[in-house]
Amino acid sequence: MPGNSFGKIFKLTTFGESHGAAIGGIIDGCPAGLEIDTTLVQQDLDRRRPGQSAIVTQRKEPDTVEFLSGIFEGKSTGTPIGFVIKNANQKSKDYSHIKDTYRPSHADYTYDEKYGVRDYRGGGRSSARETACRVVAGSIAKQLLKEVKFTAFVASVGELELKKDFSELDFSEIEKNPVRCPDAETASEMENFIKKIRSEGDTVGGTVKCVIQNMPKGLGEPVFDKLHAELGKAMLSINAVKGFEYGSGFAGTKMRGSEHNDHFNTDKSTKTNLSGGIQGGISNGMDIYFNVAFKPVATLMQKQETINSKGEEVEMQGKGRHDPCVVPRAVPIVEAMAALVIADYYLQNKTSKL
Amino acid sequence: MPGNSFGKIFKLTTFGESHGAAIGGIIDGCPAGLEIDTTLVQQDLDRRRPGQSAIVTQRKEPDTVEFLSGIFEGKSTGTPIGFVIKNANQKSKDYSHIKDTYRPSHADYTYDEKYGVRDYRGGGRSSARETACRVVAGSIAKQLLKEVKFTAFVASVGELELKKDFSELDFSEIEKNPVRCPDAETASEMENFIKKIRSEGDTVGGTVKCVIQNMPKGLGEPVFDKLHAELGKAMLSINAVKGFEYGSGFAGTKMRGSEHNDHFNTDKSTKTNLSGGIQGGISNGMDIYFNVAFKPVATLMQKQETINSKGEEVEMQGKGRHDPCVVPRAVPIVEAMAALVIADYYLQNKTSKL
Amino acid sequence: MPGNSFGKIFKLTTFGESHGAAIGGIIDGCPAGLEIDTTLVQQDLDRRRPGQSAIVTQRKEPDTVEFLSGIFEGKSTGTPIGFVIKNANQKSKDYSHIKDTYRPSHADYTYDEKYGVRDYRGGGRSSARETACRVVAGSIAKQLLKEVKFTAFVASVGELELKKDFSELDFSEIEKNPVRCPDAETASEMENFIKKIRSEGDTVGGTVKCVIQNMPKGLGEPVFDKLHAELGKAMLSINAVKGFEYGSGFAGTKMRGSEHNDHFNTDKSTKTNLSGGIQGGISNGMDIYFNVAFKPVATLMQKQETINSKGEEVEMQGKGRHDPCVVPRAVPIVEAMAALVIADYYLQNKTSKL
Amino acid sequence: MPGNSFGKIFKLTTFGESHGAAIGGIIDGCPAGLEIDTTLVQQDLDRRRPGQSAIVTQRKEPDTVEFLSGIFEGKSTGTPIGFVIKNANQKSKDYSHIKDTYRPSHADYTYDEKYGVRDYRGGGRSSARETACRVVAGSIAKQLLKEVKFTAFVASVGELELKKDFSELDFSEIEKNPVRCPDAETASEMENFIKKIRSEGDTVGGTVKCVIQNMPKGLGEPVFDKLHAELGKAMLSINAVKGFEYGSGFAGTKMRGSEHNDHFNTDKSTKTNLSGGIQGGISNGMDIYFNVAFKPVATLMQKQETINSKGEEVEMQGKGRHDPCVVPRAVPIVEAMAALVIADYYLQNKTSKL
Repeated sequence: MPGNSFGKIFKLTTFGESHGAAIGGIIDGCPAGLEIDTTLVQQDLDRRRPGQSAIVTQRKEPDTVEFLSGIFEGKSTGTPIGFVIKNANQKSKDYSHIKDTYRPSHADYTYDEKYGVRDYRGGGRSSARETACRVVAGSIAKQLLKEVKFTAFVASVGELELKKDFSELDFSEIEKNPVRCPDAETASEMENFIKKIRSEGDTVGGTVKCVIQNMPKGLGEPVFDKLHAELGKAMLSINAVKGFEYGSGFAGTKMRGSEHNDHFNTDKSTKTNLSGGIQGGISNGMDIYFNVAFKPVATLMQKQETINSKGEEVEMQGKGRHDPCVVPRAVPIVEAMAALVIADYYLQNKTSKL
Repeated sequence: MPGNSFGKIFKLTTFGESHGAAIGGIIDGCPAGLEIDTTLVQQDLDRRRPGQSAIVTQRKEPDTVEFLSGIFEGKSTGTPIGFVIKNANQKSKDYSHIKDTYRPSHADYTYDEKYGVRDYRGGGRSSARETACRVVAGSIAKQLLKEVKFTAFVASVGELELKKDFSELDFSEIEKNPVRCPDAETASEMENFIKKIRSEGDTVGGTVKCVIQNMPKGLGEPVFDKLHAELGKAMLSINAVKGFEYGSGFAGTKMRGSEHNDHFNTDKSTKTNLSGGIQGGISNGMDIYFNVAFKPVATLMQKQETINSKGEEVEMQGKGRHDPCVVPRAVPIVEAMAALVIADYYLQNKTSKL
Repeated sequence: MPGNSFGKIFKLTTFGESHGAAIGGIIDGCPAGLEIDTTLVQQDLDRRRPGQSAIVTQRKEPDTVEFLSGIFEGKSTGTPIGFVIKNANQKSKDYSHIKDTYRPSHADYTYDEKYGVRDYRGGGRSSARETACRVVAGSIAKQLLKEVKFTAFVASVGELELKKDFSELDFSEIEKNPVRCPDAETASEMENFIKKIRSEGDTVGGTVKCVIQNMPKGLGEPVFDKLHAELGKAMLSINAVKGFEYGSGFAGTKMRGSEHNDHFNTDKSTKTNLSGGIQGGISNGMDIYFNVAFKPVATLMQKQETINSKGEEVEMQGKGRHDPCVVPRAVPIVEAMAALVIADYYLQNKTSKL
Repeated sequence: MPGNSFGKIFKLTTFGESHGAAIGGIIDGCPAGLEIDTTLVQQDLDRRRPGQSAIVTQRKEPDTVEFLSGIFEGKSTGTPIGFVIKNANQKSKDYSHIKDTYRPSHADYTYDEKYGVRDYRGGGRSSARETACRVVAGSIAKQLLKEVKFTAFVASVGELELKKDFSELDFSEIEKNPVRCPDAETASEMENFIKKIRSEGDTVGGTVKCVIQNMPKGLGEPVFDKLHAELGKAMLSINAVKGFEYGSGFAGTKMRGSEHNDHFNTDKSTKTNLSGGIQGGISNGMDIYFNVAFKPVATLMQKQETINSKGEEVEMQGKGRHDPCVVPRAVPIVEAMAALVIADYYLQNKTSKL
């Protein structure tokens, strides 16, 4: 049943396959009267775009967004914002070799099992190309939340970790290197490592950390729709994500309550922030921060043995132009999903009290 | 806005505060004709009940569920299943000391910020008492999915970790010790550790692992409603949860694609299962497994400094009977939420193809 | 799938069968801080109650509502308001004669066809007893919308019609007669007619008109969720309803545009109100008014021929105590559903613009 | 908040303004494996198209639908079906005269009141142009429900009524005249009447009747989502609709129960069908039939006095090319909405019982 929508009030629905005519979406529920700068949207899309640097896929896609409705004389009208991004690189011919092949750790087999039919070209709907639509919507969500600052960055690539607390980092460094790690030295090591991995026809995983600053207080909905539960779902819905933790996260499970509790200042801020800005599922105004785990990309530029839909063993080799490591391009996607969640709860919260 | 429902087809809505007259819920969307054994429901509730062992809270609550509708002559009728669990221990007097106090790392402050008013008795709606209703619904979900086996257990308490792979464990051991860890020796260490922590008036975190066996294939809904995204949200919505990872999880971020890919057998099972039974958001029939991180309980039996609603510093001390470590009682809750997710996707999947 | 909820923000979910232990519901999404007078709720329930006059069913049901959560110290807390109404008259023995019989123009056959099983006692879930829960929620919705005035009344019984425009009526007359028609003379004729019909063991239909005054402007959501579309659905969901029209309604189809257009005054009110207070699905501040058509009750106190579940012809005769005409008791239900719709759109509208 | 979606499983979301770049939509939840004939979709669109006959608006719009996703090699893939219809006639210049004018009985004032901003070109989002997207989705819904036959036709124009029961009509006559009334003589009278009305610069209302044959049994969801309640909402959401009645409708309110009850045949069909094919909100397999009331179009080709947004009196005159009577073009829209409702309940029903 329908699973292609996200959000209750600021609601995005997306469509489109990797190699169909276009991808696109509808944002329903954006309040009227918002000045929308579409060049900012395109800038965010450009951060996610293929071919932007030497360490990402070289697929040629300009990823130009066209808005078809809902914006009039520069402002949202309260009606649905429809948009499309045409697929430039949509030739089917490159994919005949996988038409009947189940690539390991891809969605080929499970889509067939679920639907009995699939668009096999470039992964069809299961391709991460769909996330471009999320970046469009997330960019508008950010414009709705002008005060709030969303910052994602690469925190690890394989074993290489950025070891500093986010408070020690200079976020203006993030876009200065192709890895999007805000520490020049670590970024350089990561970049070299990704190049090495790529030269081996292999891939590697990594993590993205996201920090949300200047958070309004009181956002979040108990019980099932806790703010961090929806943030977790948002992140886990991004292709290749295997885990999510916020605040103290998994490390917090090893702590004692007496160490873990965040004590209040008299201005109602807290002295520490192991809670990660959320208590009881509701924001307390402190910074929200979380980590998102991405697995290594499943498409390798190596020979792999696999099976076809009849269960016969076949050999395959990745063709085309794939990312050796997904995290640099995931950074704007994580930001976009975070913005979608916060925008939705910001609007939801308008009905919380008289 | 409404955040007290879970599921799209098999849908649970809950109500109730920790110290109100009763908690309860409505399960809407349970298919008609299901034989429901209410004694199994009560058994699951008893696994979550306070006072069941020396290492959990000693609050006296029989937690007896009464079904009010939707079951007739032993079978579901397809109409809503309403139920209540009366609160035995609902005296308000014990809570006057926190009426105006914001306990550290609790939801007192954020509820006040959001709603401007709150039921301060025992945490009101933010109390984990609400999860009893989830256990009721989850138990019925399990009866709907007779073939599927849901098993959760304690995988760590503080630094103490169960180091075996789940395939090496004897799940019948889980209920034989109060910690619910399926390794007698580790369980015993954990139990002693929890007792020590309690004697210090402190608390500690831990992790619960859950394994879902005999999974139907093809469950899950791209794009935003990927199976693991909803599982993640379900787990993160449980009180005190800080993180979720499935399959290779955070460890998988350090691996290379050539190690991480799960290669197919000719029967379409996979030789390894780093994917955790889900590919592209859809189940592939292999075991689903995931970890859930619980923070240390915020209520300590120690003096703590905090503030009241006017921002004045006050001293408080936990009273009453609280869990020194939440994971043993979280085990049936994790199972219940997993069953709710799988039941919902099982029903959703009935409309996937012609 | 779930069909037992109404509303997007102010959301009611109900449960319960006519002759089960209890009926009840959950109101999720009521804003925090609302002073709730539960005696007003009980008063509305009493207007719907069986046995209130000589022309309605004499079934004995006190219909006392108990609130279980969500109200604390007289105010809503923003958390779900759970409530139950116990069934006093729940003996199964009276219904053995219809256990296997499909009563004409009832839901017996269709429930069996849909679910394969049904609670046959008193119509089970298909009984209009469920509407008591709607009255509870609607009564709270009215308290949320203190300024708005909801007035429903009986406009016709069979061929007997109240021929005055609602602007000529004295609404304070409505509760002064058992028919709930605000014109003493017509009411008296209707009452006599209903008594005559009842003495024949027969039943008759009628219409209820509802007027909503002091409407806020700007409520309603294009495109599919137009205000009158949701009002129509709300009314059509009440048992025995066959039609809905608002403003000029079916009579308006015979008019010309030059007669039908409502021209503006300079204060933006309109000189006429054939639009019925709604233009383009959004309220314009003028009175909303609509008619609801109720069919004659299907349960007759006469012998009827029908079939059983095996398709065999059987003879049946209505037993028990049924309404000869449903409209007097439908009045508070129509008001309740109207209040639920307006409350929901009132809250939805809080996110329409910046 | 979002109001631009219809359906729970077979779910349509639309976007677009009358004079923007394009209108379009996303159908999410269409089961995989459905052969979709896009020429049938275009045929349905052509029945709704402007300029198709002398008695409808002469606006030039080819209304060509382009599918962008979700259909692969002629079949639905289970993923969202995105589509656009470009607006040919999108010049803004014609609408400067109404930029600041509130046309009587249009949505200009209420949109301004709700949103504070609006796309004034051709009514923007409030234009019935949006319904083209419904026809696209409805046409695919019909292909999903191959056995079910949806037939709508014009039953009255002003005072001119088609006086025959639908069982006496030859539905193949409907498309043989521009009015879409299946009785040549009445159609001819209606056509002449519409021409006369148009020549006066006036407009007139009418009714559309819809009949659904070969209905599956057991479709519909108690309590709030009764089949006829959703059909009513669907119809009332169409521009210019003022009323809905099904089965015996408003006339049924004048009947006695002893006349109105539909008695069973031993094959479980009924001897009469005053129920209109629905009992207790669930289909019983008999024909569903209902009437939809359309008001006269508000745009007149006459001078009218009205006000502007400052409350000043202004004079206006309709320009452009408008429908003198909306019902002939409403016929395919009514069919489309009926098909969307039945398709959705058909899919919902797959989860009703074990």
